[in-house]
Amino acid sequence: MFMHNKRLQYTVRVEGPDPVLASFLLEQFGGPDGELAAAMRYFTQGLGEVDPGRKDMLLDIATEELSHLEVIGSIVAMLNKGVKARLSEGAMEEAEMYLALNQGGNSHTQSILYGGGPSLTNSSGVPWTAAYIDSRGDPTCDLRSNIAAESRAKIIYERLINATDDPGIKDALGFLMTREIAHQKSFEKALYAIDDNFPPGKLPGQDEFTNLYVNGSQGDGDMDGPWNSGEMWDRDDGPTPALDGGDGTASVKLASDDSKIVKALAERTLSDPGVDAVTGADLGAGPGAGRTTPVED
Amino acid sequence: MFMHNKRLQYTVRVEGPDPVLASFLLEQFGGPDGELAAAMRYFTQGLGEVDPGRKDMLLDIATEELSHLEVIGSIVAMLNKGVKARLSEGAMEEAEMYLALNQGGNSHTQSILYGGGPSLTNSSGVPWTAAYIDSRGDPTCDLRSNIAAESRAKIIYERLINATDDPGIKDALGFLMTREIAHQKSFEKALYAIDDNFPPGKLPGQDEFTNLYVNGSQGDGDMDGPWNSGEMWDRDDGPTPALDGGDGTASVKLASDDSKIVKALAERTLSDPGVDAVTGADLGAGPGAGRTTPVED
Amino acid sequence: MFMHNKRLQYTVRVEGPDPVLASFLLEQFGGPDGELAAAMRYFTQGLGEVDPGRKDMLLDIATEELSHLEVIGSIVAMLNKGVKARLSEGAMEEAEMYLALNQGGNSHTQSILYGGGPSLTNSSGVPWTAAYIDSRGDPTCDLRSNIAAESRAKIIYERLINATDDPGIKDALGFLMTREIAHQKSFEKALYAIDDNFPPGKLPGQDEFTNLYVNGSQGDGDMDGPWNSGEMWDRDDGPTPALDGGDGTASVKLASDDSKIVKALAERTLSDPGVDAVTGADLGAGPGAGRTTPVED
Amino acid sequence: MFMHNKRLQYTVRVEGPDPVLASFLLEQFGGPDGELAAAMRYFTQGLGEVDPGRKDMLLDIATEELSHLEVIGSIVAMLNKGVKARLSEGAMEEAEMYLALNQGGNSHTQSILYGGGPSLTNSSGVPWTAAYIDSRGDPTCDLRSNIAAESRAKIIYERLINATDDPGIKDALGFLMTREIAHQKSFEKALYAIDDNFPPGKLPGQDEFTNLYVNGSQGDGDMDGPWNSGEMWDRDDGPTPALDGGDGTASVKLASDDSKIVKALAERTLSDPGVDAVTGADLGAGPGAGRTTPVED
Amino acid sequence: MFMHNKRLQYTVRVEGPDPVLASFLLEQFGGPDGELAAAMRYFTQGLGEVDPGRKDMLLDIATEELSHLEVIGSIVAMLNKGVKARLSEGAMEEAEMYLALNQGGNSHTQSILYGGGPSLTNSSGVPWTAAYIDSRGDPTCDLRSNIAAESRAKIIYERLINATDDPGIKDALGFLMTREIAHQKSFEKALYAIDDNFPPGKLPGQDEFTNLYVNGSQGDGDMDGPWNSGEMWDRDDGPTPALDGGDGTASVKLASDDSKIVKALAERTLSDPGVDAVTGADLGAGPGAGRTTPVED
Amino acid sequence: MFMHNKRLQYTVRVEGPDPVLASFLLEQFGGPDGELAAAMRYFTQGLGEVDPGRKDMLLDIATEELSHLEVIGSIVAMLNKGVKARLSEGAMEEAEMYLALNQGGNSHTQSILYGGGPSLTNSSGVPWTAAYIDSRGDPTCDLRSNIAAESRAKIIYERLINATDDPGIKDALGFLMTREIAHQKSFEKALYAIDDNFPPGKLPGQDEFTNLYVNGSQGDGDMDGPWNSGEMWDRDDGPTPALDGGDGTASVKLASDDSKIVKALAERTLSDPGVDAVTGADLGAGPGAGRTTPVED
Repeated sequence: MFMHNKRLQYTVRVEGPDPVLASFLLEQFGGPDGELAAAMRYFTQGLGEVDPGRKDMLLDIATEELSHLEVIGSIVAMLNKGVKARLSEGAMEEAEMYLALNQGGNSHTQSILYGGGPSLTNSSGVPWTAAYIDSRGDPTCDLRSNIAAESRAKIIYERLINATDDPGIKDALGFLMTREIAHQKSFEKALYAIDDNFPPGKLPGQDEFTNLYVNGSQGDGDMDGPWNSGEMWDRDDGPTPALDGGDGTASVKLASDDSKIVKALAERTLSDPGVDAVTGADLGAGPGAGRTTPVED
Repeated sequence: MFMHNKRLQYTVRVEGPDPVLASFLLEQFGGPDGELAAAMRYFTQGLGEVDPGRKDMLLDIATEELSHLEVIGSIVAMLNKGVKARLSEGAMEEAEMYLALNQGGNSHTQSILYGGGPSLTNSSGVPWTAAYIDSRGDPTCDLRSNIAAESRAKIIYERLINATDDPGIKDALGFLMTREIAHQKSFEKALYAIDDNFPPGKLPGQDEFTNLYVNGSQGDGDMDGPWNSGEMWDRDDGPTPALDGGDGTASVKLASDDSKIVKALAERTLSDPGVDAVTGADLGAGPGAGRTTPVED
Repeated sequence: MFMHNKRLQYTVRVEGPDPVLASFLLEQFGGPDGELAAAMRYFTQGLGEVDPGRKDMLLDIATEELSHLEVIGSIVAMLNKGVKARLSEGAMEEAEMYLALNQGGNSHTQSILYGGGPSLTNSSGVPWTAAYIDSRGDPTCDLRSNIAAESRAKIIYERLINATDDPGIKDALGFLMTREIAHQKSFEKALYAIDDNFPPGKLPGQDEFTNLYVNGSQGDGDMDGPWNSGEMWDRDDGPTPALDGGDGTASVKLASDDSKIVKALAERTLSDPGVDAVTGADLGAGPGAGRTTPVED
Repeated sequence: MFMHNKRLQYTVRVEGPDPVLASFLLEQFGGPDGELAAAMRYFTQGLGEVDPGRKDMLLDIATEELSHLEVIGSIVAMLNKGVKARLSEGAMEEAEMYLALNQGGNSHTQSILYGGGPSLTNSSGVPWTAAYIDSRGDPTCDLRSNIAAESRAKIIYERLINATDDPGIKDALGFLMTREIAHQKSFEKALYAIDDNFPPGKLPGQDEFTNLYVNGSQGDGDMDGPWNSGEMWDRDDGPTPALDGGDGTASVKLASDDSKIVKALAERTLSDPGVDAVTGADLGAGPGAGRTTPVED
Repeated sequence: MFMHNKRLQYTVRVEGPDPVLASFLLEQFGGPDGELAAAMRYFTQGLGEVDPGRKDMLLDIATEELSHLEVIGSIVAMLNKGVKARLSEGAMEEAEMYLALNQGGNSHTQSILYGGGPSLTNSSGVPWTAAYIDSRGDPTCDLRSNIAAESRAKIIYERLINATDDPGIKDALGFLMTREIAHQKSFEKALYAIDDNFPPGKLPGQDEFTNLYVNGSQGDGDMDGPWNSGEMWDRDDGPTPALDGGDGTASVKLASDDSKIVKALAERTLSDPGVDAVTGADLGAGPGAGRTTPVED
Repeated sequence: MFMHNKRLQYTVRVEGPDPVLASFLLEQFGGPDGELAAAMRYFTQGLGEVDPGRKDMLLDIATEELSHLEVIGSIVAMLNKGVKARLSEGAMEEAEMYLALNQGGNSHTQSILYGGGPSLTNSSGVPWTAAYIDSRGDPTCDLRSNIAAESRAKIIYERLINATDDPGIKDALGFLMTREIAHQKSFEKALYAIDDNFPPGKLPGQDEFTNLYVNGSQGDGDMDGPWNSGEMWDRDDGPTPALDGGDGTASVKLASDDSKIVKALAERTLSDPGVDAVTGADLGAGPGAGRTTPVED
């Protein structure tokens, strides 16, 4: 069960209104690497987890991410507080309001549609979608996804910090960024606490293809590195079709009836290489009429 | 520049039609962890990459993933070949066709809308979206995302392999699954070949919060593990609001005019705790009329 | 700041596994009227609210909705616990697993993609989107939206209760349904505690159109009711174009240059009613060639 | 059956081109509270309605909303008429056209992609989605959703009116805004014409939880109001886990086989709190190899 | 301005309830080639059109498509009428209702979420999106898109007709299908009534690449046809990189400062081919520490 | 199987950085008519095609479109190269970076979220979706869709060319635009090489409605053209409801039990035209209480 304390996890002091910066910051409120995505990623994993240790960790961190969602949303609300009130009270000349809405970023939609409240969109106004969440119900996959997600969130906070000189916002964003680092560490520790963490699942790979590097892109610029070179790696520099040694085709066994129907379809829609396709577009004739000869209406 | 060879990277032999299985397999064609997502993740990263080694690797693997997209799509096409022809040729009684469309999975939409061709949807018919792609333009983030994506793709192939006894399909899926393992290794090697891979970016964290574990979920079931215990970790077992030591509020400095407008807004929309809100819904009066007393039409 | 207690707000006893029912229940986990939508609707409103009373109420209820999200997600996890384990451990014959995945609802995708964990999708597998959230930053709008949302959630819980005979699930769903009723009441009370709650905002309507009912659909079946009849209503039984008394056209003043360019566009793309459009499709000629006469390659 | 009259429901006079304002106005063309959403909300409800009175009303208003869609779309077309022609005729120097596309709002995409025609997107270019429509097939829910939708549409028109000084546009938007007020009244009247309108559906709530207010957010700022105080309300100031009096856990009865498989899964993926997770990342060994000891390639 | 007549454009007689068939038919209500997509495609084009002839045609056909939307939606409502009432009235035993919801197609979501009313989703429950609409503001493009859209709608109606033996539904679907044929003809006629209809727009192509066929897919299965062979076509059988004769690279001129920063970025994130990446995963050290050597906590 | 050559199909020389232009160009990278949409449209069609000639053509052109995706993405990467490096290296004062992010178009999100790499979004930041792809598994439909798609892509390239004076970019875009023209020709040739290409599929239309033009939009502005006039066309100038000669209603035969339940539903939710709906909103009474009389708490 969740509870809420009206004090934020981190105090927020904003120097003054800035709806454009507010729209930038939405990237971490309703964007793909934002705090809602983080909270929901860990929360859904936690509910389905069978290991009590990971379950506890996932719910701990999910809960903290909700607190971070509140911090970032509160900053957005502060940056928009003035424009929200002016818009609601009709307290500007129209021409002035027009300019206020057209300052940049996604500030126009944030004001017109969302009334200056924090919206669950990214910095372009794209609504948050659960398509951002990659929980798959396997702990070694999910922990890797979490590690990656935390690292993405960290870099986006860094970019935002680099783009504002409001000291209170920089400080709060710095806190949020730091917590992503801490969470990434927890998830790494949890991943390596699973004895059998690679590859995910139980099925081993096919031996001949586990250590093969396929050099699919060729020409000047081919490089060697630990990802494709060394004792560990076999190389396919072709690249070679039909690595299985077969003919590289796809086929299916069809019952005799089905084969006939497939043949009928192929014949009916045959692309005739010999056709004179010059005058095909006329549609004046009734439906089903031949398409190769133009017909007067 | 891309080129194509008509032979597949792996030969595909399908025992017989099965539109339901086809719809399951779409998870790896047009699903979030499918081959298009993989190809586009690495391709977009490759185009923006400044390091020639990683650029080469990303284009190598992106190219191979396109070849895998072709393999999985070809299996889907084979499984649907019969239903596609029957549907196109009107070669079934209506009642029989109705049953053929209602076998399960997402086979009905795959036939009615997509005509039995492989569609870029997941196994529920949800169209593929670039929201699945988490390329962020930072190599240490992107490689971690790639590692996670490969591990997710591996586990989904495993689930599909466990759900079909068609030997040709099992074999081809096994190949595709194995290649995800190999790619995961390449991306791990590439990540650790970057000297400064943690944390992502250049900004360090705030020292006091880097090693702090916030125990947000409390009660029976609190567990210790390497993710929250040991020398490395400080603990906040509160959890504690306002970790910065402030008052935990959010505030913004507003110009005097704005403050007045905010006040006007607050007063106009005041929630009056003393109001008798019993009979508020009548809308018979003109707009703007007080809402607290019902009015006859 | 949020905190979490490991005990649920309501105890959940599930009779046995049922992945199909689990997929139905997702409607209230990741569907448009589900608990995440509720929580995020009130949470975003609360962050932007200037009235301390409503802010408190919105955060109270947002917090409870998160607890409900946990209850419904936990039921889903219980219903899927068996299939998740069987899938993860490869503990079924393939043909048996295929049947287990094809029982109906959206159970196939829930297993293959989400591994049996609760996913933020609706009962068809459509990912949750913030497009479901209609917070607009005006309290009289937002409260009406909340009242409507609670009533929708109530009816969907009722439908789900009517479709399961598992007593533990019925009981928990009954609790969740009841809480929607209570929340609806709170939001109604809060709406009518705003003195000036209709119409939303500050601008009055245009007098002549405020009480007009436009009878746009005509013929047998025209009905009278309090929504279009009585002293309050004027009627337009036409319906009448150009209610303003003008000519009903749309026009814009263009600078002379622009007018010329618009004219040039109109001429270049003129639809010539006299053309003999019989043989238009040939594209054998070079680009830009006239389209009215077929040309030999 | 629908018919169309070429005269608009309201005459539109636009002072001059303004692609930025056009992109703002799209909020009411293809945005979540725009006229298409309104028309389709009522139209889909009307088709499924069994009560002839409401059915008539819903089709009346749906039809009028389509006429409003035409008015707002026509304004957008007028505002873009110049840029559309210039773009189509290549009638600007490139540098000038670049600037013309970069004036703000979403004008760039509206020109490049949509060619200056009115597009079914919101003011950020987000395509309209039926996810905006909350018709649920229950009249007391649907009417509440309609009341809320009309109030949202009203407030967005108000914001747009406050942001333009073009008198013809202000006048037309004022008409459209007023009609939302009138529609809201009709829907309120129709709701209260249903005798049994609360709660929606037929199932009553669980008595002990119908009048309970859960004070989920605590600390300074806790407020009383008619939504949580007075004779009507019981209070849970805890908030209290397991309101049912149980243990607050979630559980499911599993068959013996399933229990064993769940146990096997838990063991295989155990998070070992004692593990030394220092050196886990090496993937040089074959798949399936233990992860706790680094291995030379 | 739109008006509505309560009589449908075509009479609908349905033999009996069938929620599964209803969900199939949604493909033409809220699917990508359904009637809403058709209506909105032509309506948005009509509003932006400068040619009075095409504008009239587009509004004529848009209006008719809305009438078709009503016909198909009415069929869906009839097919669901029984389940809607049973669900609303709680008129089934739970186990029976569970089975009624799980008959197949998307019938479960159509009942649980949409209450049996016609929903603007496709046959899988995917909400309609304006992403389906390809209006681009150029008449020769838009007419081609319309021709294609009508042909797609025709084929989907054919598939649906082939899957039901309800004579009333077959008859009504046959009408709707036929109208798509008629509309396709109108759009073809309108396209060829534009003198300069190919290529779209005003810019000619680059001469050397207008008639070139690039044989990108090679190997067994290379075929000749009028699309790549004959006097009209030049051939690139390579395919050849850098068709312009350049070096096939991408480059940009950067100011000296920028070049230095790019270099710094490349160095900081260098992939070192010589690194021993064996033991990289430990994160026990502080942020920023080198990643090549494991460190004790 | 796909292969890649590191040389582009066309050499790209960019004059200098321009993140705003980069965001415009994304329209052809991740927009609805962009190169990914083209490649995936033809690729999915090719996999399902039974005619070897069309299959070859579709794979040829799909492969080339992937090469075009690489060209346009490389231009975007070049235009963003400077901002990507500055952002990554923290090489700007905050205020300066803020301005750099707020230059217009969608450049802010492209930098903050995507780090300057080419993203699969359109020029507004809307993620690419497979909803853009209209492959339907019928060759005469699909070829028409391809013809339309190529013509749309051509016009968007033209608009982009008209908006940049960078000679290298103009040249490369001119190449890409020209290739769309060539592809359109190939698809036209392939369409008319199918003997039976109209109407799509096998079912003929209903004779009486095949050549009927329904004049749905009436009044000043009614026009004649080859799309509605001439020997070929019958006219319905009404427009006429119930073209079938029936009564224009929709009905379904229900079993006796169902009819009773429908009646019960109608009665329970009756809209009573005689009700005094003045004081309906009070929710103070318990659930289920009558709504027509206000009740004290």
